[in-house]
Amino acid sequence: MNSVTKKNKLVSDYILDFLVSKGVKHVFILQGGAIAFLVDAFSRRKDIKYISVAHEQSAAMMADAYSRVGPNFGATMSTSGPGATNLITGICCSWFDSIPVLHITGQVNTYEQRNSYKTLKQVRQIGFQETEISKITESITKFSKKINNPNNIKHDLHKSYAISQEGRQGPVLIDIPMNFQTLKINSLKLKNQNSDKKVQSINKNYNAKIIKIINKFNSSLRPALIIGGGVRNSKSVKETNNLINLLKIPTVTTWTGLDCVDSKNKYLIGPIGVYGLRSANFTIQNADFIISIGARLDTRVTGGMPNTFAQKAYKVVIDIDEAELLKKRGLVINIPINSNAKNFTKKLLINKNKFITNNVNKKNWLEKCKKWKISYPIVSQDYYKLKKYVNPYVFFNELSKKLSKKDIIVSDTGAHLTWFMQTFQVKLGQRVLSAFGNSPMGYAFPASIGASLASKSKNIYSINGEGSFQINIQELQTLKYLNLPITVFVLNNKGYGIIKQFQTLYLNSRFEGTTKGYSSPNFEKITKAYGIKYFQIKNHDDIENKLDNVIKFNKPCLCEIMIKPDQKIIPKLAFGNSIDDLSPLLNREEHKLNMSN
Amino acid sequence: MNSVTKKNKLVSDYILDFLVSKGVKHVFILQGGAIAFLVDAFSRRKDIKYISVAHEQSAAMMADAYSRVGPNFGATMSTSGPGATNLITGICCSWFDSIPVLHITGQVNTYEQRNSYKTLKQVRQIGFQETEISKITESITKFSKKINNPNNIKHDLHKSYAISQEGRQGPVLIDIPMNFQTLKINSLKLKNQNSDKKVQSINKNYNAKIIKIINKFNSSLRPALIIGGGVRNSKSVKETNNLINLLKIPTVTTWTGLDCVDSKNKYLIGPIGVYGLRSANFTIQNADFIISIGARLDTRVTGGMPNTFAQKAYKVVIDIDEAELLKKRGLVINIPINSNAKNFTKKLLINKNKFITNNVNKKNWLEKCKKWKISYPIVSQDYYKLKKYVNPYVFFNELSKKLSKKDIIVSDTGAHLTWFMQTFQVKLGQRVLSAFGNSPMGYAFPASIGASLASKSKNIYSINGEGSFQINIQELQTLKYLNLPITVFVLNNKGYGIIKQFQTLYLNSRFEGTTKGYSSPNFEKITKAYGIKYFQIKNHDDIENKLDNVIKFNKPCLCEIMIKPDQKIIPKLAFGNSIDDLSPLLNREEHKLNMSN
Ligand SMILES: Cc1ncc(C[n+]2csc(CCOP(=O)(O)OP(=O)(O)O)c2C)c(N)n1
Ligand SMILES: Cc1ncc(C[n+]2csc(CCOP(=O)(O)OP(=O)(O)O)c2C)c(N)n1
Repeated sequence: MNSVTKKNKLVSDYILDFLVSKGVKHVFILQGGAIAFLVDAFSRRKDIKYISVAHEQSAAMMADAYSRVGPNFGATMSTSGPGATNLITGICCSWFDSIPVLHITGQVNTYEQRNSYKTLKQVRQIGFQETEISKITESITKFSKKINNPNNIKHDLHKSYAISQEGRQGPVLIDIPMNFQTLKINSLKLKNQNSDKKVQSINKNYNAKIIKIINKFNSSLRPALIIGGGVRNSKSVKETNNLINLLKIPTVTTWTGLDCVDSKNKYLIGPIGVYGLRSANFTIQNADFIISIGARLDTRVTGGMPNTFAQKAYKVVIDIDEAELLKKRGLVINIPINSNAKNFTKKLLINKNKFITNNVNKKNWLEKCKKWKISYPIVSQDYYKLKKYVNPYVFFNELSKKLSKKDIIVSDTGAHLTWFMQTFQVKLGQRVLSAFGNSPMGYAFPASIGASLASKSKNIYSINGEGSFQINIQELQTLKYLNLPITVFVLNNKGYGIIKQFQTLYLNSRFEGTTKGYSSPNFEKITKAYGIKYFQIKNHDDIENKLDNVIKFNKPCLCEIMIKPDQKIIPKLAFGNSIDDLSPLLNREEHKLNMSN
Repeated sequence: MNSVTKKNKLVSDYILDFLVSKGVKHVFILQGGAIAFLVDAFSRRKDIKYISVAHEQSAAMMADAYSRVGPNFGATMSTSGPGATNLITGICCSWFDSIPVLHITGQVNTYEQRNSYKTLKQVRQIGFQETEISKITESITKFSKKINNPNNIKHDLHKSYAISQEGRQGPVLIDIPMNFQTLKINSLKLKNQNSDKKVQSINKNYNAKIIKIINKFNSSLRPALIIGGGVRNSKSVKETNNLINLLKIPTVTTWTGLDCVDSKNKYLIGPIGVYGLRSANFTIQNADFIISIGARLDTRVTGGMPNTFAQKAYKVVIDIDEAELLKKRGLVINIPINSNAKNFTKKLLINKNKFITNNVNKKNWLEKCKKWKISYPIVSQDYYKLKKYVNPYVFFNELSKKLSKKDIIVSDTGAHLTWFMQTFQVKLGQRVLSAFGNSPMGYAFPASIGASLASKSKNIYSINGEGSFQINIQELQTLKYLNLPITVFVLNNKGYGIIKQFQTLYLNSRFEGTTKGYSSPNFEKITKAYGIKYFQIKNHDDIENKLDNVIKFNKPCLCEIMIKPDQKIIPKLAFGNSIDDLSPLLNREEHKLNMSN
């Protein structure tokens, strides 16, 4: 028997057993002394692989996207000290967007740890590269622990996994001292952890509430539905679409909910919020009854003054995280329901005969919202007339038409994210990912590698700004090496577009650190230096002539899109306004009329 | 009056005033919404500049090196959330090596913060990109605080600065909500902080101890001196050299102390430790009396079993951090002195007439140590015979001869660091930097940019492995843009050399994640793609023919050095041995003889 099948096995082998049992197929790693024994365990098996990356930050982002795309669970391994701290920005992505990921870090030997010596005062470091990663990440993980007893390893692993999955999901971290990694343990005798089941949300007896919600819905004149990321997290896209078809009311989404509804769905108005569509925002601001499912209604959705959000509506809000329902920021929730999205949606569907839908009022209201959608298109036909440069609204409109319903699109953060989210027309089945709550520059590119490994044969399109892309540009080597079907779009507007717009509005166009003092490289040369195919789209003709080829390329490539340096996000909320009043402001009469429901 | 000179000024302007008053000339930044108002303040003045970087990780490392090189103080500015968490690995460099740096992060508006709403349970995030950076960095900074009252800004800034400087130095972080940045405050009325003086170490009355030390020294037969990083931190290189000349005893250094003594100094034996010189280690292991100044004697110095370190010696250890003296790991300190290095050294110098030096025993002992130095040269003449590839010991030996006493050399981490530290012959005046305690891959390159800005006209040489260099490769753009006289050496051994050696020794040459699954790009193409001059040194002839040109180039350039993929670190300590017994092990007789003092 080799060490993989023996019951007396190395902790390192046991850990891989565990990962395999949880469906992990790829682990994102960067080597180092304190993790070398663990990584060595991969040499003894074929049922799980590691992926070496060039910077641990990317490993964490890859694992995050790997979990988002599913069906398997994302994990990383990295060494102590800098190997561990390099993960943090990626951990935050998973934390804020509720993505379960397991990070395994190596730690110095127990006898070299600062807390193994009781002294009056803590010293900064004893072991080489000793860093208290479990303490540092305490506030951005659901569970983070330095293993202090190798016999608890089974217990600790199972516990961390269970915690990452239960309730509002999130990242967990296990820190494993080097000297434990090579211990032989009897895996049968290991202390077990009982709670290795997904703990479903506390479904308090809320049938009465359901009846109340149905009654409120039935008597409402202008109901609307908000679809958030909790729908995807609870795997209830199908149920949600059934609900939309049942209720037949205007439906809007948050950014995380965007890919849960087909853009052709006749009830869909579009994404709401600070960078939302006017039509979707008017819908919410005029509704008299709202059910929000799996959306935390943060300020990017409500605007800076949450008390002005959906003011006219009776609000039913479903969230898996009680704390989200209890946060008091001026937004009054009439019926808060602490449940996961799937559970709640099923409860409504069971009662489907009790709903009064499609009556005259509701029909008129739906028509009104659909009219807004037509009156305020995001892509003006004028945009097509641009001769020099590519208008990003035109670009995403055309890209959107060309992508298939299996594709995965991963966006970074900046103006390009807003252009993309405002314009993109989802085909149900597509996945649209971004690290919405944390929004680090540099997420999209490594995340697209994680997404590709998770989904195998699917085509991945990653959307980047020329600023953001620089953050993890080193992973071009990983892309080249793995030879994955990823198309990297880099929208080059010669600066940090979203901040430039902020400076135009509030800082008298003083472009400090966004144009002044800022520079970006020649992406053509760099792409080619990495041995990757390069395309360029510099005007609208190029979209017609080249975009098809880019999309069909199906191998690593980078396509640079030349954007006008002062291209704006249109529309967008200005400080101090409510979300019905996006800038550029509409004529006051027109705005008033739209709000007079 | 403009806002800079008015007494009623914006908090942002006040902060720049403060930085200027502390001698900060460059602030390393990356823009973002939550820091935009602060960065905008630079538009109103000429006495301080910002440097835009491509990744905040580099900003933190640049600021760290900026402080190390001096004379000014390093600072960064970055935005909330990912902008802040990206600093962490750089912050750890300053924390573990005791480098004062001020990090200023932008935070979401106070009214958008999670802790401004008292609820039962904390929610993960309220404001967009809200992340509790002051909490996350609590254990790796001397002081980290989210400003909660703009009238305390003066107090908080002065306090953070004072704390970063006093006692054992280190990084501090101030998190400033956006809505405070644009407040007008009366700078005269601001609450003050009294302790804006450098608090010198607590010099307990230790004259008696000094006398005891002198007596012990006088009666010792084989005394030795250890020079650590505290010498540089306390700015006592001159005093230390005076002490060496006074005591006339074998002197060894830690890595952080390396550049405090000229390699031609007749008392210098060399660097000690796990990757030390045999001669230096024999010196320490045979000494009967040791004074260690400003070295924390961590396991990279003592080996994994601190009880075997300098076992025969009566040990006097000077450390500014009491906790370092109290750590109990088997190393017995006979006279611990909690003082900064400068203070202690001065105390000895004042008593110079009391020392008995240069007697027969001490002279013989010095000769013995110097003989070891000759018998165990680090650069074997055989190394020069290599035809294909460059032997790194040869390379650093030759480089060392060519560099001038004003140059600054910054090394990354990996085998290349050990080759460099083992071989390099310091000319007093040179600076040798690395992030020794934290040792993140990717430090050297951004740090060389920080060092260059700190030192203005000096030439900077950065030493990298082809693995480490990938981590912050995006800063090639910053280098190009700033056009600084930095030479980037990349030692390419096609893998993580130091880990490969570990795998050879302990993992039966299974090169998981170091060769297998690992790849690196074509550095020539990439360097050129960034518009930077490229050189290559592929064998020893190239050293002779090209290295002079590289060194004289004085503009941004990258020079790739081709190293044999299986090149080892020689000598190096194996697990379980004491530092006198470096591998490859000497003949047992020879070892015994060397240890028979
Ligand atoms: C790591 C990190 N640093 C800073 C920010 C703040 N920030 C958000 S978007 C942005 C500009 C992005 O520029 P680019 O990628 O060129 O996109 P554009 O807005 O031009 O489309 C910045 C600096 C961030 N989100 N993450
Ligand atoms: C951020 C980070 N990740 C991992 C490590 C662990 N580590 C230390 S050195 C090293 C290999 C460095 O390889 P390279 O730069 O090619 O240098 P070489 O050892 O080959 O000279 C690794 C992976 C580290 N120190 N920092």
